[in-house]
Amino acid sequence: MRATIIHGPRDIRLEQAPDPGLSGTGRDAIVRVVAACVCGSDLWPYRGVTETTEPRRIGHEFVGIVEQVGGHVSAVTPGDFVIAPFYDCDMTCANCVNGVSPSCLTSNWWGRDDRDGHFADGAQGEFVRVPTADGSLVVVPGPIDDAMVPHLLALSDVMGTGHHAAVSAGVGRGSTVAVVGDGAVGLCAVIAAKRLGATRIVMMSRHADRQALATRFGATDIVEQRGDEGVAAVKALFDGIGPDAVLECVGTAESMDQAIRSARPGGMVGYVGVPNGGAKLPIRTLFGSNVGVNGGVAPVRNYVEELLADVLDGSIEPGLVFDLELPLAEVADAYAAMDERRAIKVLLRP
Amino acid sequence: MRATIIHGPRDIRLEQAPDPGLSGTGRDAIVRVVAACVCGSDLWPYRGVTETTEPRRIGHEFVGIVEQVGGHVSAVTPGDFVIAPFYDCDMTCANCVNGVSPSCLTSNWWGRDDRDGHFADGAQGEFVRVPTADGSLVVVPGPIDDAMVPHLLALSDVMGTGHHAAVSAGVGRGSTVAVVGDGAVGLCAVIAAKRLGATRIVMMSRHADRQALATRFGATDIVEQRGDEGVAAVKALFDGIGPDAVLECVGTAESMDQAIRSARPGGMVGYVGVPNGGAKLPIRTLFGSNVGVNGGVAPVRNYVEELLADVLDGSIEPGLVFDLELPLAEVADAYAAMDERRAIKVLLRP
Repeated sequence: MRATIIHGPRDIRLEQAPDPGLSGTGRDAIVRVVAACVCGSDLWPYRGVTETTEPRRIGHEFVGIVEQVGGHVSAVTPGDFVIAPFYDCDMTCANCVNGVSPSCLTSNWWGRDDRDGHFADGAQGEFVRVPTADGSLVVVPGPIDDAMVPHLLALSDVMGTGHHAAVSAGVGRGSTVAVVGDGAVGLCAVIAAKRLGATRIVMMSRHADRQALATRFGATDIVEQRGDEGVAAVKALFDGIGPDAVLECVGTAESMDQAIRSARPGGMVGYVGVPNGGAKLPIRTLFGSNVGVNGGVAPVRNYVEELLADVLDGSIEPGLVFDLELPLAEVADAYAAMDERRAIKVLLRP
Repeated sequence: MRATIIHGPRDIRLEQAPDPGLSGTGRDAIVRVVAACVCGSDLWPYRGVTETTEPRRIGHEFVGIVEQVGGHVSAVTPGDFVIAPFYDCDMTCANCVNGVSPSCLTSNWWGRDDRDGHFADGAQGEFVRVPTADGSLVVVPGPIDDAMVPHLLALSDVMGTGHHAAVSAGVGRGSTVAVVGDGAVGLCAVIAAKRLGATRIVMMSRHADRQALATRFGATDIVEQRGDEGVAAVKALFDGIGPDAVLECVGTAESMDQAIRSARPGGMVGYVGVPNGGAKLPIRTLFGSNVGVNGGVAPVRNYVEELLADVLDGSIEPGLVFDLELPLAEVADAYAAMDERRAIKVLLRP
C-alpha cells in the first residue's frame, strides 16, 4: 500500500509500505482508509520544531471501512464504516472507564509498535491495522452520504478535542467563553461551547475567513488583538472581569499566557493545545486569581457517540473546518498548505 | 490596645497600638477580638522565607464581638458575635457574587491600608476595624458556648480553606481523595472531603498525633512516605491508578509535585497552599495525564454560612485542630510552638 512517511523538516513523502495484516492477537482489525487529514500537531515535526530522528509513518486521524477482523473482535464486522480516535484504546481498563482513554493501560498511538507487539500504522495511508478494534472503532450506521464524511472525520480528533477544552473548562448553560486559537480545534471549541449552552463566545482571531467560520459556528464576538491588548479587549467585553472559561487551543507559551490572563477570577482555562516551546504555568497568578487549568490529550473516543448523534442529525457541522481536499498522492502539498496557512485543515482521500 | 507586630525573622512582639475608631465611611465596624490564631502562612515571614521590610501588624483570623458600627451598616449590630474571613470583602461586586470574594473589587487584606483609605488592623490584637462590615462579618446566633469558639474561629480560614481544596478538586459523593499536608488546613481538608461524600481519604503524614486527628476526621488510610515512594504508596491504594482528587495543602514545589504525580489520569489537584519556594507546574506531565490544577486563595467568606450550619449542629469539629491555647500576651510563644511543630495550630485569647 501507499503510506505517508516524514523524513525530516518539510520532507513529507508518500511511499510504498507493507500491506498490514492481522497480527494473530485476535483483537485487531484492518481498516481501509476512506478519509484522513493533517493535524496542526503534524506541523511541528514538519516545521522542525520537534525533531524527526528517523523516517517514520505519520497521521493519526481517519475514517474508513473495516476489511478484516481478528477472531475475538465482536463490535465491528467487515463492511462497517468506522470512526477511529487519534489513538488506540480498549475502553475497558480503569482509565478508559474513567473517561481518560488516551491513558489506556493496554494501548498506544498510531504509527508505532503498539503494546500488542505489532506495528499499528499511521493514518495518512491506504490501510491501518487497529490493534484494539472493539475499543477503538465506532460504527456509523450506513449508508454513508459522501457529504457526511468530513463531519465524521472531525470526530476522530478536532471536534472531540475542542469539546474536551470546553468540558475541561466546565462550560455549561449560561457560560461565557473566550477561545484562544482559530485553527480547526479552536473553531470546533466554538461549536462545543455553543452546544454546551454558552451564551457568549469570543473568538480571538485575526483572519477573516476563520472569523467568518467562527461566527457561523456560534461565536458572538471577535477579538483581533493579542497580548496585553488582547487581554484588555476580552475583559472589556465582560465588564472588565473576564469570561468564565477560556479555551486554549494552540499550545504555545504565549497562547497559554493569553488564556490565563483573560479568564475572570475563579474562572477556568480548558487547554488542549499540545504544550510546545516552553509553555509555563504561572502558579502565583493562578493562585491569586483562583483561575484553574484543566485539560490535556483529549479523550475523543469517550466523546464519539455523544457527538456523533449531533453530527448525524445535522445539528453540528464540524467538517466545515476542512477547507481543502486533496488526493493522498498530494499529501506533501497538504502539509505545505496548512504550514503556509492557505488552508485551515486539509482532508486527504486515498 | 495591644496588637502583634512582626519586626523580622523570629521577632514577634505584642506592643501598644492606637485603638481603632470608625473611619467615617459609614461602612465599617469595630470588633473586639474574642479569639485569634496563628496561620501556617504567618510562619513564612516568621522564618524569613518572605522578607519583612518594616515592622507591620500581623494576623488575619478572628472571631469577636461587634463594639461599634458605621451609619450605613445594617447586617451587624453592637453585641453580635461575628466570624470574619481572613480578608475584607463587600459580597456585592461581580467577583464576590461569582464566589471569589478574595478578589473583591472594593476591599483588601487585614493589616493594611484598605481601599477605603484607612488602616484595617491585623487580627492578632484586641480590636480590629472591619472596613466592609456588612460584607465581611457573619453573625453567629447567640448565646455562644465557649467550647464552640475554636470551631467558629476555624471558619475564618482553615476550615473554609480545606473545603476550598476539596471543592476545587471536584470532590463529591464516591470520590477517592489523597491529602498532601497534615497541618491545620490539610486536616480540615479531610473533614471537607468526608463531608462532601468521599468514600476513601488518604492522609499523607508522618506525625502520629496528626495521623490520629486525620483518622478521627475521616481519613481511611495513612501514607508516611514522600517523593517517589509516596506517589507509589498512594497509587498502590487505588489499583495503581491513583485517587480522583489530591488536595495540596502546603504550597512548596515538593508538595505540588507530590500532589500532581499522585493523582489518577483525568484527576484533579485542588490546591490552597500559598505557593512558595518556586512551586512549578509541569505542564507536559499535566497534559499527558489530563490532571487538572484548580484552587487558590480560598473564598472562605462564600463558604461560612454553609459550614457554620454543620459546626452549630456538631456534625463537624474543625476546632480540634487547635491543640494549644495561649493568652495573646504569649503570642511569640505561639509562633515558636508552631514553628517547632510542638503545636498544629495555636489559638490566642486577648
